[in-house]
Amino acid sequence: MRIVDWHVTPIALGDPPLLNAAGLHAPWCLRTIVELVADNGLTGLAEVPGSAATNAKLAATRDVVLGRDPLDWHALRAAVRAHFGPEALAARGDRPWDQRALVQVESALDVACLDLAGQAFGVPVATLLGGVVRRAVPYAAYLFYKYEGAGGARGGGVDPAATGWPAARQRAALDPAGIVAQARAMVAEFGFRSLKLKGGCFPPAEEVAAIRALRGAFGPDVPLRLDPNAVWTVDTAIRWGRELEGALEYLEDPTVGQAGMATVRRALQTPLATNMCTAAWEDLPGSVATGSEDIILTDHHFWGGPRAVMELAAHCRIFGRGVSMHSNNHAGISFAAMTHVGAALPNLSHALDTHYPWQSEDVIAGGRMRIADGCVTLPDGPGLGVKLDRAALARAHAAFLRAGLVARDDESEMQKKVPGWKFAATRW
Amino acid sequence: MRIVDWHVTPIALGDPPLLNAAGLHAPWCLRTIVELVADNGLTGLAEVPGSAATNAKLAATRDVVLGRDPLDWHALRAAVRAHFGPEALAARGDRPWDQRALVQVESALDVACLDLAGQAFGVPVATLLGGVVRRAVPYAAYLFYKYEGAGGARGGGVDPAATGWPAARQRAALDPAGIVAQARAMVAEFGFRSLKLKGGCFPPAEEVAAIRALRGAFGPDVPLRLDPNAVWTVDTAIRWGRELEGALEYLEDPTVGQAGMATVRRALQTPLATNMCTAAWEDLPGSVATGSEDIILTDHHFWGGPRAVMELAAHCRIFGRGVSMHSNNHAGISFAAMTHVGAALPNLSHALDTHYPWQSEDVIAGGRMRIADGCVTLPDGPGLGVKLDRAALARAHAAFLRAGLVARDDESEMQKKVPGWKFAATRW
Repeated sequence: MRIVDWHVTPIALGDPPLLNAAGLHAPWCLRTIVELVADNGLTGLAEVPGSAATNAKLAATRDVVLGRDPLDWHALRAAVRAHFGPEALAARGDRPWDQRALVQVESALDVACLDLAGQAFGVPVATLLGGVVRRAVPYAAYLFYKYEGAGGARGGGVDPAATGWPAARQRAALDPAGIVAQARAMVAEFGFRSLKLKGGCFPPAEEVAAIRALRGAFGPDVPLRLDPNAVWTVDTAIRWGRELEGALEYLEDPTVGQAGMATVRRALQTPLATNMCTAAWEDLPGSVATGSEDIILTDHHFWGGPRAVMELAAHCRIFGRGVSMHSNNHAGISFAAMTHVGAALPNLSHALDTHYPWQSEDVIAGGRMRIADGCVTLPDGPGLGVKLDRAALARAHAAFLRAGLVARDDESEMQKKVPGWKFAATRW
Repeated sequence: MRIVDWHVTPIALGDPPLLNAAGLHAPWCLRTIVELVADNGLTGLAEVPGSAATNAKLAATRDVVLGRDPLDWHALRAAVRAHFGPEALAARGDRPWDQRALVQVESALDVACLDLAGQAFGVPVATLLGGVVRRAVPYAAYLFYKYEGAGGARGGGVDPAATGWPAARQRAALDPAGIVAQARAMVAEFGFRSLKLKGGCFPPAEEVAAIRALRGAFGPDVPLRLDPNAVWTVDTAIRWGRELEGALEYLEDPTVGQAGMATVRRALQTPLATNMCTAAWEDLPGSVATGSEDIILTDHHFWGGPRAVMELAAHCRIFGRGVSMHSNNHAGISFAAMTHVGAALPNLSHALDTHYPWQSEDVIAGGRMRIADGCVTLPDGPGLGVKLDRAALARAHAAFLRAGLVARDDESEMQKKVPGWKFAATRW
């Protein structure tokens, strides 16, 4: 099999006004869709976070990839790395979301090559990752503080009236009662059995109160998570972590850096999870040396693809870390890829994160993927098991062109609501 | 695909009188051949070290495996582990070679399932491990102190006159001149470009003299290795390691245990390799904590199969360890599996070990695998690319029955030459 063509399509999907430590979600979230066309007529799909930097890197990858065998992953990856040089792989971002472009290119290539291989062999991608451990992959409800509004409505996208969203998910959620109402709507619609609150937006006492309200509303059998995105000091993390002892299945990235996380971890019984302090291969020796977390939230977009995630999971098994999966906004191709990884991970310890309910549109054929009983069932069919809806892709690409965004910038978006607002890596 | 039948065939291959720290090789080395027969008519092959314990474990695995999908590796492995319980996986041997039976069962199943998958998909096993990085896989000459004799001759096996062995390889090698002559014969016949001496047999001064003789004979461009199999004390290892500074590409397992290895490593410039102090998943945290070695010599038979070796290689990449491969006596099926692993390892740092030149027989169709220019070329054809020669298998099984051996026992064999000889974990 040879790769004979290659399409990269930036898209924008409507996104509601969700709050996080970095600011406010813009009306559009950016993704980039990659298609690898093989000489046997098969097409392999992938999706990565969208940015001008990643798109430029993808464009520069095209000539390296054309003519190569997609089954020959090691050689293809080596050629891409050789093309960009070692510093490209080591480059790190300075924001809560990861801005390394090359690792996202590798992710796109790994996913698309696995999709091609699965189709060529007639097996799901999960089989190529070692086999399906669970066909129903559990996800957690991802609760956000937010302003009024549904996905897409703000930027000329899909009319919220057409999204079928329950009113409670459209409404603002800026206090414990709002978060509980949002959680109830999420659980009613999707059957989620664990709840994650994106924190780092309000003073810790308010977010801790929201967790307590969730506990009161859902009882002790629904696991809860709080993710302040590392904007707490070590002292704040210990103080509020102690307040929350027994209430959380894990506290995610309460503070910045492995040393701080390790200090917090020694002070608390509650397990700590991370997708920030241990977020790349070069972080793993420090993780082992400091004991910075109990659970690594992997992400095939930021570790170099599904096969890389399986390697990370082996590391987690060896060093006694739990494994789950981080999420950014995403469409159905990433959701399918995440679900294949979640289906194949022998040591998946916690339900995966997903932003998917916060989008209303998608680019896959047959409509959006279904979440039921808190799970996504592994798609039928070989490879990823999803295909492009070309009309939907064209609409989402048109939206990208209309949106005029080059990168995610939650800080600027927040400044529209709160003039002068500045991101601070440590806030409380 | 379903596994519908299963054959386990213990075999014995003639083995010359090779010396090592554990004693003397018996006239026969034991291997066990596993065949998984699928409902589509394909057969997957594997080979593991032979012993009554492993054969019993394999027999007890049969009913767990029949009816399962060989593509569903995670589920198959989980079923086998559940059948035997966690203590079976953790059990460790007390000899320089590994006596864990379950990990060898897993290795056999992983290799045979990969062989089936490769045949079903029409790709080499190396492709299923991520892709071929090198088609010519480098091996090192494995030099042994030995008594007079060729493989098989001692126990009624193949007549040494019929083996085509050069006289220098049949002859005794008990001093530096004998080792150099053996090395010259090995290099002339197979083109090996690095040389490993199995040590731990004679006082360190004698083995260091042999290394010096090899250096003198082959010059500084041929990498040399010495493996005392951990029978040196820390002080001995440091003393003789210092004598050898600059002469070795690595010193393998000079002393026993990670703490001792770490002490030696801090004292020497020469890199240390191991297949003894870091030989199982549960050893890896200690390896990282102590810094016990520079290079891990993996072995798919002892880590749970080729896919497990790829996970170990990722660990080595993360923690700055080189990767190569240990060998016991083996036939062509193991040789093919080793070669696929060696072809797929992106971070293979040193030529692999192999005992293959010390055997004269095999059970694969088309004659023994070929070593040329020190390399084995990845077999053509899907899967492992090797098939059984049923007549040769029957002969080797008959030899197993004749040999009457239940496990490797180099100590007893040595006592036939040196009455009262006892294995000592630390000798010098």
